Amino acid sequence: MSTPTTVPAHLRAAVDAAKERVAALHAELPRWELVVWTAGNVSERVRDPRGADDGSDDLLVIKPSGVSYDDITPDAMVVCDLEGALVEGDRSPSSDTAAHAYVYRHMTDVGGVVHTHSTYATAWAARGEEIPCVLTMMADEFGGPIPVGPFAIIGDDSIGRGIVETLGGHRSPAVLMRNHGPFTIGKDARAAVKAAVMVEEVARTVHVSRQLGEPLPIAAEHVDALYDRYQNVYGQH
Amino acid sequence: MSTPTTVPAHLRAAVDAAKERVAALHAELPRWELVVWTAGNVSERVRDPRGADDGSDDLLVIKPSGVSYDDITPDAMVVCDLEGALVEGDRSPSSDTAAHAYVYRHMTDVGGVVHTHSTYATAWAARGEEIPCVLTMMADEFGGPIPVGPFAIIGDDSIGRGIVETLGGHRSPAVLMRNHGPFTIGKDARAAVKAAVMVEEVARTVHVSRQLGEPLPIAAEHVDALYDRYQNVYGQH
Amino acid sequence: MSTPTTVPAHLRAAVDAAKERVAALHAELPRWELVVWTAGNVSERVRDPRGADDGSDDLLVIKPSGVSYDDITPDAMVVCDLEGALVEGDRSPSSDTAAHAYVYRHMTDVGGVVHTHSTYATAWAARGEEIPCVLTMMADEFGGPIPVGPFAIIGDDSIGRGIVETLGGHRSPAVLMRNHGPFTIGKDARAAVKAAVMVEEVARTVHVSRQLGEPLPIAAEHVDALYDRYQNVYGQH
Amino acid sequence: MSTPTTVPAHLRAAVDAAKERVAALHAELPRWELVVWTAGNVSERVRDPRGADDGSDDLLVIKPSGVSYDDITPDAMVVCDLEGALVEGDRSPSSDTAAHAYVYRHMTDVGGVVHTHSTYATAWAARGEEIPCVLTMMADEFGGPIPVGPFAIIGDDSIGRGIVETLGGHRSPAVLMRNHGPFTIGKDARAAVKAAVMVEEVARTVHVSRQLGEPLPIAAEHVDALYDRYQNVYGQH
Repeated sequence: MSTPTTVPAHLRAAVDAAKERVAALHAELPRWELVVWTAGNVSERVRDPRGADDGSDDLLVIKPSGVSYDDITPDAMVVCDLEGALVEGDRSPSSDTAAHAYVYRHMTDVGGVVHTHSTYATAWAARGEEIPCVLTMMADEFGGPIPVGPFAIIGDDSIGRGIVETLGGHRSPAVLMRNHGPFTIGKDARAAVKAAVMVEEVARTVHVSRQLGEPLPIAAEHVDALYDRYQNVYGQH
Repeated sequence: MSTPTTVPAHLRAAVDAAKERVAALHAELPRWELVVWTAGNVSERVRDPRGADDGSDDLLVIKPSGVSYDDITPDAMVVCDLEGALVEGDRSPSSDTAAHAYVYRHMTDVGGVVHTHSTYATAWAARGEEIPCVLTMMADEFGGPIPVGPFAIIGDDSIGRGIVETLGGHRSPAVLMRNHGPFTIGKDARAAVKAAVMVEEVARTVHVSRQLGEPLPIAAEHVDALYDRYQNVYGQH
Repeated sequence: MSTPTTVPAHLRAAVDAAKERVAALHAELPRWELVVWTAGNVSERVRDPRGADDGSDDLLVIKPSGVSYDDITPDAMVVCDLEGALVEGDRSPSSDTAAHAYVYRHMTDVGGVVHTHSTYATAWAARGEEIPCVLTMMADEFGGPIPVGPFAIIGDDSIGRGIVETLGGHRSPAVLMRNHGPFTIGKDARAAVKAAVMVEEVARTVHVSRQLGEPLPIAAEHVDALYDRYQNVYGQH
Repeated sequence: MSTPTTVPAHLRAAVDAAKERVAALHAELPRWELVVWTAGNVSERVRDPRGADDGSDDLLVIKPSGVSYDDITPDAMVVCDLEGALVEGDRSPSSDTAAHAYVYRHMTDVGGVVHTHSTYATAWAARGEEIPCVLTMMADEFGGPIPVGPFAIIGDDSIGRGIVETLGGHRSPAVLMRNHGPFTIGKDARAAVKAAVMVEEVARTVHVSRQLGEPLPIAAEHVDALYDRYQNVYGQH
């Protein structure tokens, strides 16, 4: 672990902007009923343009540990380096910070990470069962099934390693960590939050569908066509 | 696709009124928990009294693509012709616009269209299974079972064609597009939104009922009597 | 049906107070997620102290038909006689008014009636299956199982008659009308609303419990003891 | 039962602070959808530093019986001694006060007690089935399965005795009282409310998971490691 230092002056504005975004995005977690009490966390990478090419000098902004969603403000957010060490902030970072940091260290394209225990996604995770791709919205967003990551204990790198190893081989921005819950990634924190919302939505819909029978599969070429169009055409460009 | 032009002066007031209604009606989708994030869309036809008798000169007002429900205002709404080409608006229209436009072109009585991925309706759609008419409120609103439309890929007319071909033979204002979700129609956008709310309500209630056994059927003559009364007597006249 | 007249002067204050209560109580229906769109209705009896001993000169206050919950104000409420004929109000009364009126005519102790299509209660009703008394809160409130009433078509007295005949033999203030939904009664509108909230609560809890096995029965003498205590001791006296 | 007296002057400030906390914490019950209507209650112990070593002179602050969540203010809270007798307040204490008082009398470390009929926890309670520990968040918070307490009738000490006897042998701060619902304990009212939120969360998630198969077990040594870390490291220190 590197020694905590301070936010470099040339990253001040970027860190402050990230704190605003990350604080605001935390409100989406209770809004879409993905979390209860103080569970769940959102982080965003702050890239250091003067840092090493591998991004190892980047910072991350995340929620403090065990803090109520009513008390989340930009100033309450904490800043850590990519070893998970505290750089700025009055409180301890989320206990999931090591997992977030591991993902940023090993997936340089990732700009945002979200973790929740949202009910339906966690229910699939408890059975260790991937979610089959039987909805067009799932093909759009995930490009196939949502995979399951290994059982991993908090406290070392095993959660982060499980996320990275599982998502390495998938188009899906979401992984269901066994007996634990979903982690999602994105190009920024907002994209990772969207993936967290969508993984719960499809986990719930496929669960409900399977309660009364077997959902019909979508042919692989249709999944590919939907994914391709959605990633390249949807939204405002 | 026709070339985008501008809103004709004689339709200005009607278009602006439709933008107000359509923007306000979008708030009903998250209110009744039919959508998450930016999913779902409502459109309304603006009839051109000076246009062709087949309604082909009418316009439609719809939500832009990928826009948060927090940012939906009348001014943000976009106007398209019935080929789906943009006529007015700063943003790309919803990626489902082609399907809405196809419905308006081929069903001249339809004045409003709604699409969601609401959980229970989409769960039936994923199994490709129609919802049986076992509730009096379903007989009232839908006049029978809620039918399933074909699997169709976004990007051409196949979704619109699937909606029109399925609803052509039914009293139901709702169709469950296979592996996708519900589309609903109505004499105006408000009626289509009501049908979107009701299709989720009956999809959920019949699902829950079937989880613990088989719901009792309603005799066809009772379905007819309920539908007839509701369509002709209910509400304010 | 009697000819609509006007509210007698000696009932003016009582009618106005009932309109306030009934309008405010309607807000409890969406609050506890018992209704969607314009479904559901609450009524309250206004007793006429100068009227016939059998209560046949009493009035009832109820919601108009097909009106949004956003537009419910005391002034929007309508007044009917106990034949269901309009006495005061600008709009048509709820299409369920005849059922409410029948209950008031035949159950003179009843001061409030509520009807919803709340999901879990309606799901039991669609199977025509009574809810077994396996929760202490159910013993408290309902004193036993919640019974099912007959299938009945709207438009004559058959719904009202089904409610009265079913509740006549039970301690339960709620009946599940087959394929339709719950009706609840109480000494006033507030008590009937409470019963509507509680019938959905117990319908949902017992449903969930039975999804994974068989709930344990409560011995009849314990049901009696709980009901007795709750009806006589609970709350503020 | 001791004779109701008054709050001793040296406890005035502590009682008033507890009333503030207990009133505010009641809002968490409907917020997390643990209660309907007037169900549920939160209490907190007020320790008397001049009282007996066994805590028998302590007081408790609790909600009055049958009062709407809209009407809960610090002033509306009532104060009882640890026999459950009213010491201060205009209204009757919650009908569950005897159970709370019994817990405080027999578990001197307990500073807060919460009771709800939250849906999923009560559904397990109705089957008399403990919730297996198959989620890491459950290992964190409960340190193992959530146990079931005996069937007990309100009106004597049997509920309180059932809680104390069951929780005596467990790390879990929650017990599912058979056919009734969950009771939770904590070092203060806030911790007991958190446990009430979490017991419903895990009851729901494990229920959903088991609907489509069998959740994977977590090895006992992992449960121990998670519990240990969470109790000693999580949150702000």
